[in-house]
Amino acid sequence: MRRIRIIGIGSGHPDQVTLEAIEAMRAVDFFVIADKGPEDPLLAARHALLERHLDTVPPVVAVTDPERDRHNPSDYRGAVTDWHDARAEAYERAILDHEGDVGFLVWGDPAFYDSTIRIVEKVLARGQVLAESDVLPGISSIQQLAARHRIVLHDIGQPILVTTGRKLAEAVADGADNIVVMLNASLDELRSLSSSKGGDWHIWWGANLGTVDEVLVAGLVGEVLDRIDEARAAIKASAGWVMDVYLLRRETDQTG
Amino acid sequence: MRRIRIIGIGSGHPDQVTLEAIEAMRAVDFFVIADKGPEDPLLAARHALLERHLDTVPPVVAVTDPERDRHNPSDYRGAVTDWHDARAEAYERAILDHEGDVGFLVWGDPAFYDSTIRIVEKVLARGQVLAESDVLPGISSIQQLAARHRIVLHDIGQPILVTTGRKLAEAVADGADNIVVMLNASLDELRSLSSSKGGDWHIWWGANLGTVDEVLVAGLVGEVLDRIDEARAAIKASAGWVMDVYLLRRETDQTG
Repeated sequence: MRRIRIIGIGSGHPDQVTLEAIEAMRAVDFFVIADKGPEDPLLAARHALLERHLDTVPPVVAVTDPERDRHNPSDYRGAVTDWHDARAEAYERAILDHEGDVGFLVWGDPAFYDSTIRIVEKVLARGQVLAESDVLPGISSIQQLAARHRIVLHDIGQPILVTTGRKLAEAVADGADNIVVMLNASLDELRSLSSSKGGDWHIWWGANLGTVDEVLVAGLVGEVLDRIDEARAAIKASAGWVMDVYLLRRETDQTG
Repeated sequence: MRRIRIIGIGSGHPDQVTLEAIEAMRAVDFFVIADKGPEDPLLAARHALLERHLDTVPPVVAVTDPERDRHNPSDYRGAVTDWHDARAEAYERAILDHEGDVGFLVWGDPAFYDSTIRIVEKVLARGQVLAESDVLPGISSIQQLAARHRIVLHDIGQPILVTTGRKLAEAVADGADNIVVMLNASLDELRSLSSSKGGDWHIWWGANLGTVDEVLVAGLVGEVLDRIDEARAAIKASAGWVMDVYLLRRETDQTG
């Protein structure tokens, strides 16, 4: 039976890939990738990754990414599932048009805020592609953030909430005091946090982690927010794109 | 300046290590490990890992692990910091007694419920060891859990709470409905959850992930808890140790 392999490739650096992920990349007959146009910031990085680890790069089938309806934010979930359905159809066609095992390359780890696993499950549920699938985990940007700041993602024995920029205000309102935030469109959520009451927060922030443009900032949100803003603009200018992630911890009199 | 390298080595399988972690293992002059006695279940796995990736294994300095005071559960934090201080002293001595770069091997990822980063920071703060430190992330057991079950760790766009067995009841009381639980001493917390009101929970459970004894169970907690109990006992009998991790998601009428 043919295999669909979902391969986590880490947060940016080609050496931040596991041996089992490299073996999987070498074993597939072709890759399917979402074509986000020639401006896709990850095109060059993906190319470098494959060149670094594979003697012969197999065909890379680019599938035009379906448009996602971003006009109705009240039905975020519905818009996302429609988009997943469209992607599943497109991936199904790409897989049926080619022979052998297929690989999907996922930045970071497929288990965090990535749609590939859900879409592959949809492809299999449609019943046209007969295959078994497996997942190889990769280093997530939140782990690279912690590693570069040399921190643990929680206070001793305490929980970690992982969420998105969209949901940060909700997390704070619910009383979370140790929050990892992925998928930030802007700094608006951090600005609201900084201007709200209830004490200050410590932030450990990083952008374009694992790349030559990597920048780290740490400090009290109220004191470093402008530096983060400037860093974001500078990275955008030099790299052409910016992807950031951060940990927030409410300041208390405890240390550690 | 000499280096202290904190190296994440993944959740069990020697091929689930990144290239940069392997390079770091090859570059250090000696390793310091916590000696937990001849019954330490990870002794053989660590040996296999080093043999697999290093042509010559450098000295491995075993440091007797200080006793941790487990008699006063009300001061968990205090007991843990005392233990960290004792470990920092012991590691300091081991590092001062040897020359060159030192490596610490951390199961999973050093950013999740591991003390090595905090203890190395304490060693550096004591001022006797002059060194710089870096951290190489590894695949955490929660990522391996997700990969083996082929799931994303959250519902679409929703948050993930990562916590410990000790804190599970608190998380549920606070309204969390998507919870990853690490560090389980027993199934008591799951039993309480199963017998409490408020609807059922779906569980994705795994033990001894990445090893030959790996077992996965998924289903409604009320329906699979006995199977998990039996699996834990069976693994304990065959492997000599059991380490498990799980994801809980409150059942709703939504799927995805």
